[in-house]
Amino acid sequence: MSLNIAVDAMGSDTYPAPDVAGSVLAAREYGDHILLVGDEAVVRPELAKHDLQGLKIEVVHAPDVITMHDKPGSVGKEKPNSSMHIGMGLVRDGRADAFVSAGNTGAALSIATLFTLRRIAGIKRPALCGIIRIGEIAVMVLDVGANTDSKPEWLAQFAQMGDLFSRLSLGIPKPRIGLLSNGEEDGKGDELVRTSGALLKALPLNFIGNVEPKHLLSGMVDVVVTDGYVGNILLKSMEAATRLMGQTIRTEIKRSPLTTLGGLLARPAFRSVARMVDPAEVGGAPLLGVNGVIIIGHGSSNPFAIKNAIRQARKTVLGKVTEAIASEIHVA
Amino acid sequence: MSLNIAVDAMGSDTYPAPDVAGSVLAAREYGDHILLVGDEAVVRPELAKHDLQGLKIEVVHAPDVITMHDKPGSVGKEKPNSSMHIGMGLVRDGRADAFVSAGNTGAALSIATLFTLRRIAGIKRPALCGIIRIGEIAVMVLDVGANTDSKPEWLAQFAQMGDLFSRLSLGIPKPRIGLLSNGEEDGKGDELVRTSGALLKALPLNFIGNVEPKHLLSGMVDVVVTDGYVGNILLKSMEAATRLMGQTIRTEIKRSPLTTLGGLLARPAFRSVARMVDPAEVGGAPLLGVNGVIIIGHGSSNPFAIKNAIRQARKTVLGKVTEAIASEIHVA
Repeated sequence: MSLNIAVDAMGSDTYPAPDVAGSVLAAREYGDHILLVGDEAVVRPELAKHDLQGLKIEVVHAPDVITMHDKPGSVGKEKPNSSMHIGMGLVRDGRADAFVSAGNTGAALSIATLFTLRRIAGIKRPALCGIIRIGEIAVMVLDVGANTDSKPEWLAQFAQMGDLFSRLSLGIPKPRIGLLSNGEEDGKGDELVRTSGALLKALPLNFIGNVEPKHLLSGMVDVVVTDGYVGNILLKSMEAATRLMGQTIRTEIKRSPLTTLGGLLARPAFRSVARMVDPAEVGGAPLLGVNGVIIIGHGSSNPFAIKNAIRQARKTVLGKVTEAIASEIHVA
Repeated sequence: MSLNIAVDAMGSDTYPAPDVAGSVLAAREYGDHILLVGDEAVVRPELAKHDLQGLKIEVVHAPDVITMHDKPGSVGKEKPNSSMHIGMGLVRDGRADAFVSAGNTGAALSIATLFTLRRIAGIKRPALCGIIRIGEIAVMVLDVGANTDSKPEWLAQFAQMGDLFSRLSLGIPKPRIGLLSNGEEDGKGDELVRTSGALLKALPLNFIGNVEPKHLLSGMVDVVVTDGYVGNILLKSMEAATRLMGQTIRTEIKRSPLTTLGGLLARPAFRSVARMVDPAEVGGAPLLGVNGVIIIGHGSSNPFAIKNAIRQARKTVLGKVTEAIASEIHVA
């Protein structure tokens, strides 16, 4: 099924090259109509570098450019014609089924919730849903950065939104929902964790109780609920440790001719591990709880990551996740 | 200099073997007088397996055994003759310079603060000080589990205690102190992070601002201040990611004869990486802010880890860290 997907051409750290190249890949692979949103003077020359024959790619002009110096909270007001603002407006107005951006997460959250799509009625807080993938395992963590200092009722809705996304978009029939804690026992965790368990138990979900970081990587849980600050620290800690370990192994292997030879012979194994933990395979994190499908990618996205973020957007649209959140989540 | 170090013989998950063997190693290497605290009927037969010639090792009987079923909060009351209780009592009474345990962290915290050593006057909350070591880099993170739902004033004292420990015990002349956050900008982090920055800036410390998980592993910060729940999630996330990556590499390398051969040739490099990230090298986490030196090791400690926890205890005693905390930290 061919969808209309708006893509932020000015999103990634090295825009527009990866954003445009990823859009071209997706247009070719999925046959979607891509609306590339950005400054025409920047986007058109980049697009001209690609063979576009048979592809449905349109440029939508957005003159304002969000920079690192813009404040996420006020950029929606100060730059109403940014690629994010206009791209999300296309979703709001029904001209696009989804918007994909590898730009500043804070700006995206603020423009989505305050200026364009806004929260779904009854949803207390939207959640950014990080997806940790290792080989065949995929675990959703929400929230990973849209909220801090969360309330138990927010976490209860994160659990419900995560359950719907996992079922409808990832196809997991009965997602196992866990509450992030630093121990499995009931008394562990901070005040929020200790007061949220009872609320989660009362929901019609497959709630399995407290889970620790190691359980996220063991395949025993599908959806992990947490405050956005803690979830963000968790993701970044795992990412930092994985990256450092990779670098350290490379350095140590080069120390002697014999280990260097060993490293060369073992290269297919290392490549396979690198692929298994590559964040580009996931592409992006859905922002759940707003009136439309938004996927936010890593600033360091390459074309492959952008293409996969578009794939994620397709799945979310086709699974009717937004509609389900609007109709099925009971207001507490 | 020979010290009197009390060691919990009933602490580790597989006590008393690693606890006793580690004590024997330390007695031999440092010439310390070790007071092995535990059930005599369990400890003496284990000790008899070792060659004790020339070593100063004494058994101190502690009939109560703390099990996984004991509640950390009430075990100090219900089992006043546990190895932890008696071991910390030896420190309180001046019979030992420090106490080392690989037992339940919650029980150790509760017995230390409520029943034996108690808080240093003026210290709002003791902090458990995790030490992340990768090769030559050692970063202290505090708190990693003694407190949750922290207040800015607690974090300010954690920073001061960390600064003193880093200078006096680790010998770092001017420790760089960072505040854990999910971004370097001032507005990042949760409410606690956003309100603690100003307080930390005002202290006579080498405060470098917000640091992210990746900065902990890059050698740019010596002491990282955070709430204990978040610090615990950070440590456990890094540990889980590192362990999974190691396992995944081993599995992938065994997939073909050629990569298996490569893995064999590269083995010295892998061994070196494993040593660089081995938590046993650190041994244990000091509990700062109580009237005495307590080092808490991992439940999975091996003899080498116990010996290194005793080394950590020695450094903390010789650096007079407890005395410095009592005299130098200004009550807010």
